[in-house]
Amino acid sequence: MLNKSSLAAPGLICVGLGPGDPELMSIKADRLVRGARHVAFFRKKGRPGKARQLVEGMLSPQATEYPMEYPVTTEIPVDSPAYVQQLAQFYDDWCLRLAALAKQEQVVVLCEGDPFLYGSFMHLYTRLRARGDVDLQVVPGIPGMVGCWHATGEPITWGDDVLSVMTGTLSEDELVRRMDTADALVVMKVGRNLPRIRRALARAGRADAAWLVQNGTTDQQQVARLSEVGDEVCPYFAIVLVHGQGRRPEAAW
Amino acid sequence: MLNKSSLAAPGLICVGLGPGDPELMSIKADRLVRGARHVAFFRKKGRPGKARQLVEGMLSPQATEYPMEYPVTTEIPVDSPAYVQQLAQFYDDWCLRLAALAKQEQVVVLCEGDPFLYGSFMHLYTRLRARGDVDLQVVPGIPGMVGCWHATGEPITWGDDVLSVMTGTLSEDELVRRMDTADALVVMKVGRNLPRIRRALARAGRADAAWLVQNGTTDQQQVARLSEVGDEVCPYFAIVLVHGQGRRPEAAW
Repeated sequence: MLNKSSLAAPGLICVGLGPGDPELMSIKADRLVRGARHVAFFRKKGRPGKARQLVEGMLSPQATEYPMEYPVTTEIPVDSPAYVQQLAQFYDDWCLRLAALAKQEQVVVLCEGDPFLYGSFMHLYTRLRARGDVDLQVVPGIPGMVGCWHATGEPITWGDDVLSVMTGTLSEDELVRRMDTADALVVMKVGRNLPRIRRALARAGRADAAWLVQNGTTDQQQVARLSEVGDEVCPYFAIVLVHGQGRRPEAAW
Repeated sequence: MLNKSSLAAPGLICVGLGPGDPELMSIKADRLVRGARHVAFFRKKGRPGKARQLVEGMLSPQATEYPMEYPVTTEIPVDSPAYVQQLAQFYDDWCLRLAALAKQEQVVVLCEGDPFLYGSFMHLYTRLRARGDVDLQVVPGIPGMVGCWHATGEPITWGDDVLSVMTGTLSEDELVRRMDTADALVVMKVGRNLPRIRRALARAGRADAAWLVQNGTTDQQQVARLSEVGDEVCPYFAIVLVHGQGRRPEAAW
């Protein structure tokens, strides 16, 4: 009898894995990951990779793994020509390699959170789509920021609140300008940008209401008021957030 | 032998059901919904309820259903004292009723999308938490807007893009002000606000790039450029979105 994975149609499927708790993976993601014969994922050199860690224990013993190791991450500025050129080449190379494989077999690309919200997969996606010779599918996932606002135990938006999601890589002035028109806000890509984010929050009058959340929904979840943590050590994937305070019908008692 | 649901601990669990495709429900949501003995959900009078429709075919025959029917929706202005008073009373009443039940048994509250992103459940949540006598859990889900940006087949944010999520209930000037500091944007609660949203997008110079998405990830999914649809009929749950155009390393070929 043919097993399920050998019946999988050729093509490439990027699977959003959600915020970290394996039980928050979708039914579809769970099924695709467990049945996968070819599994690709991004990682920093020398690291296991966040997406790969998330599926630990779920992969078939027959699965072949394809770690896609970034040639650079934070060693050189993201707007330098060298960075752009090395990254473009990296995505070009993996696009070629995965396309060749995906024309014969089904390839699953793992992606933490949601693949279409600041995900590295998007760079492969646009390249593969431009080729036009590979069947492409993308499975949405619960974004990491959603897991982080749940970790605080507070709704992120009420009534007419505007939620703005920004990256800590913006300049301090830009951050202040964007924070000024936000009610609820989420700052992603924190890491070494934390001191600048903190200054921008103070200028926008939001510092006291800010939270720092790491690994929301996982065993390593950490939630703290930003005012109570220092700038020393902060991972890139931490999220700073401020809850909205919009309209709500108050309890009568 | 005791079955699984009879072992469920008393308390109230709100379950985020995701954007519409039942396969995009989380493993946890699927398990809780199928095992539930008491299932509550919001709906407009005379309608089946979006959340309830999403779990069609999944509920146990033994499950008791508790439809929570809004006393008003769009009949009177949301900022009128009558609206606020009626809604507050409605949430107060259901809080009392569900709390009494949840002290004895496990109650599952269904919520489309993610419960902490503009969800009605938040009004029950704050009330139940204030009582302090009911065990409360909330399970994140893929927000509806995530399903909608996947429906367009385009990533919503790139590089340093700021994503702003706003409601169509804001005034035209407010919408323009918020759109002006957004790169990618999502407008929720569309419905009869569509003409105003369209005018605001035009003033912010974003009209040509806007999409109207309904029921993303479901069989009823509809995706169109906003410029190609009229203002006639548009459901409240439709979403208007504009993709970000941020930094990305271009393909070398």
